[in-house]
Amino acid sequence: MTPPAPGLDDVRARTFPFPKRHFTSATDLERLEVLSLLDLADSFVALNRQKAKKLDLLKGRTLMNLFFENSTRTQSSFELAGKRLGADVVNMSPRSSSMAKGETLIDTAVTLNAMQPDLLVVRHASSGAASLLAQKVDCSVINAGDGKHEHPTQALLDALSLRHAFGDISGLSVAICGDVAHSRVARSNLIMLQMLGAHVRLVGPPTLIPGAAKNWGVEVFHDMREGITGVDVVMMLRLQLERMTGALVPSTREYFRFYGLDREKLACAKPGVKVMHPGPMNRGVEIDSDIADDLTVSLIQNQVEMGVAARMAVLASLAARLDNA
Amino acid sequence: MTPPAPGLDDVRARTFPFPKRHFTSATDLERLEVLSLLDLADSFVALNRQKAKKLDLLKGRTLMNLFFENSTRTQSSFELAGKRLGADVVNMSPRSSSMAKGETLIDTAVTLNAMQPDLLVVRHASSGAASLLAQKVDCSVINAGDGKHEHPTQALLDALSLRHAFGDISGLSVAICGDVAHSRVARSNLIMLQMLGAHVRLVGPPTLIPGAAKNWGVEVFHDMREGITGVDVVMMLRLQLERMTGALVPSTREYFRFYGLDREKLACAKPGVKVMHPGPMNRGVEIDSDIADDLTVSLIQNQVEMGVAARMAVLASLAARLDNA
Amino acid sequence: MTPPAPGLDDVRARTFPFPKRHFTSATDLERLEVLSLLDLADSFVALNRQKAKKLDLLKGRTLMNLFFENSTRTQSSFELAGKRLGADVVNMSPRSSSMAKGETLIDTAVTLNAMQPDLLVVRHASSGAASLLAQKVDCSVINAGDGKHEHPTQALLDALSLRHAFGDISGLSVAICGDVAHSRVARSNLIMLQMLGAHVRLVGPPTLIPGAAKNWGVEVFHDMREGITGVDVVMMLRLQLERMTGALVPSTREYFRFYGLDREKLACAKPGVKVMHPGPMNRGVEIDSDIADDLTVSLIQNQVEMGVAARMAVLASLAARLDNA
Repeated sequence: MTPPAPGLDDVRARTFPFPKRHFTSATDLERLEVLSLLDLADSFVALNRQKAKKLDLLKGRTLMNLFFENSTRTQSSFELAGKRLGADVVNMSPRSSSMAKGETLIDTAVTLNAMQPDLLVVRHASSGAASLLAQKVDCSVINAGDGKHEHPTQALLDALSLRHAFGDISGLSVAICGDVAHSRVARSNLIMLQMLGAHVRLVGPPTLIPGAAKNWGVEVFHDMREGITGVDVVMMLRLQLERMTGALVPSTREYFRFYGLDREKLACAKPGVKVMHPGPMNRGVEIDSDIADDLTVSLIQNQVEMGVAARMAVLASLAARLDNA
Repeated sequence: MTPPAPGLDDVRARTFPFPKRHFTSATDLERLEVLSLLDLADSFVALNRQKAKKLDLLKGRTLMNLFFENSTRTQSSFELAGKRLGADVVNMSPRSSSMAKGETLIDTAVTLNAMQPDLLVVRHASSGAASLLAQKVDCSVINAGDGKHEHPTQALLDALSLRHAFGDISGLSVAICGDVAHSRVARSNLIMLQMLGAHVRLVGPPTLIPGAAKNWGVEVFHDMREGITGVDVVMMLRLQLERMTGALVPSTREYFRFYGLDREKLACAKPGVKVMHPGPMNRGVEIDSDIADDLTVSLIQNQVEMGVAARMAVLASLAARLDNA
Repeated sequence: MTPPAPGLDDVRARTFPFPKRHFTSATDLERLEVLSLLDLADSFVALNRQKAKKLDLLKGRTLMNLFFENSTRTQSSFELAGKRLGADVVNMSPRSSSMAKGETLIDTAVTLNAMQPDLLVVRHASSGAASLLAQKVDCSVINAGDGKHEHPTQALLDALSLRHAFGDISGLSVAICGDVAHSRVARSNLIMLQMLGAHVRLVGPPTLIPGAAKNWGVEVFHDMREGITGVDVVMMLRLQLERMTGALVPSTREYFRFYGLDREKLACAKPGVKVMHPGPMNRGVEIDSDIADDLTVSLIQNQVEMGVAARMAVLASLAARLDNA
């Protein structure tokens, strides 16, 4: 099923300068640019399925992973993407060190910038943190999640997964379900999926769908069965209990009853429906294990694989822009 | 004393496909296979004593270190082994991130597997964790310690240390002393030492020797002096106080009096006796500093050196199997 | 402004064997040796400003970062320096692992040494820790900060920053201001600056200037305005509140009023004065943000850039000594 992995020269030939110096939002890209990145990412999918996964497109380049919020999954994905392209990768989790000594976010950024990295991947609990950093540094900034705002490489990898499953994203009907209010994944996906021609629905309890959603060109549903009726794709979101407080925290049992994805609800969707989840999953809260683990329906593992390839495409393209500068 | 380091081609020629896809237990290997791995490890011992320690046997390969339990020593040993063979190494300590978000062990494994590592080194507090993971992933799993169950690369490095000290392991009399009940080191060593023809004794208080030991083909002693009388090797275990609770926690002073290794007790062993300890040591609890630091008797530093070489042999051999697949 | 980056052969030709096996104190070097290291570091400054920053001077070498105290900044600086020179870098932060299991500093060092690193960078809360380790290991030890004692690579990078700003250090008047008592940065800088011909003043409250300072060949001032009158360089120190207890902890508001650097106090210095700070800064405590961020006055970002280059020079030179051994 996998085409032969392209050679280094092929990949080099397909690599194009990223349209912007930074990638902090799904809005940084236009439709054709996304499609070109997905084509480039396909090269890396094929490559990563080979034995030898190493290229030299980022040789001599430095990638810094600056994760103010912990994430085994996303940090490892960027680290692997960088290393497979030959970059030197340095990981930092500044919670426990300088920040504790009273250093500000900007001080940290300016300090790291002075070490002359080429690419800075940042995750932070505050919306807008990545854009703020991007204004202060010389290197390229990649937003790996800023508060409730955006997580654009997640949207890119989700698009890559959908293209692998369906061939084309245009015309697909996608229901994004659950805790939309706290989800940067939902926001970036909404932007990119609409750009690629998908029809997007938002499904969740009124407390977890922002009021502004009615202006986003989406259909909003508060009944799960109704919301996923006839869709091609059900994209579940993680219930972010750690961002809720007091009376707003739902009972996970109640939540699963009304908004958890099980076989019975999934039967409302179109035959051949695919299920996605950005991980980590709360099994039995937003999704039934039976569905999560059914590889005929679930794209969840596939999303992780596509994540490394999509990030390789972004890193290679940002570096190509630096090469041309 | 050290033979000249072999060239890359020599090492490549000596590297053979690992007999199994995973290395989760000392029982995964047969006697001749252990001996071949020890021969291969000897190449790496010589290499590591040279200035330039870098080979390319794992170039393009990805090694993931997945340590649910902290271990500076073992994790660094695997990290160095991987890097010296040219692998890309990614470290993960998932306690504080995804696991805290409710992800299961299997979810973590399946997620990492989707990133297409070639080799996954795992340490976990639960017995059987490594085998469980091995059933869920495509890559090769190396058990770096699972609860009280096994730690097979420790047994391999201990065998390598003994071969360096004695030339041959067959016929040696080895007393494994102390907290056998909580020790995965004891279990893996017992299997491999018996396979290589050593006579093994277990020495410790009745509360710290499992009742089943009488079926393991070993002599059991509860008196330390008696237990080490005439042995070639005294292998001390760490007293794992962190795994004991309540009334079962011994007084460390009492413990040292009866089971701590000091000069007076060691005098019961055979002249030329060698002392081992897997580290980290509780000095003054299970072993006297005077013995630990006496390089004419102690193999403890040697064990650490052999650890890197033994792990290089395992990694190179597992990768050779992947190459042939 | 930057000269063309030298080729690998040029850098190799400029690299000389470090005068000592270890670099644990500014006193390990003599004046001409410091100047040669600064020349070598200049090569790396030029290199790091290029796109491709990778050399192979440390290929096959292993650098271990052993940080018992957390430091995003210094650890990353050494990690980058090592990786840009082609070394394999292994990071360890042993607080939470072996040390918690009762292992001593020396056990940790001896264990790591047995893994045959070539270069061991150590930071520890105890004065003298680096020298103690250096006596126990075969590899080269670099002191990245030991308690209140020394931080010699900081002094080297500060000298490099001053040479870039002033051309020559000899004859400069430098005021080291603030919490001298708890500062290893002050101590190493005092030694190296005096060696290079600068006139050094110490400025701070009597409680934060050691009584012995009167024997160090410096002028001591307790009034900040008086202390920086006419100086070329104001080197601010971080107020190390985490090392103070009880009645000795100053009010940060009071501290800023008397010893914090603001425009009004800075006006006492010589026109063209440059301001330094080793970071991380307590903005509004020891330094006003207005000054810290004014790139016509502040060398603070420059110091970080020089840090990577200075450490590359130290690592390359220590490795050259190993090559010759």
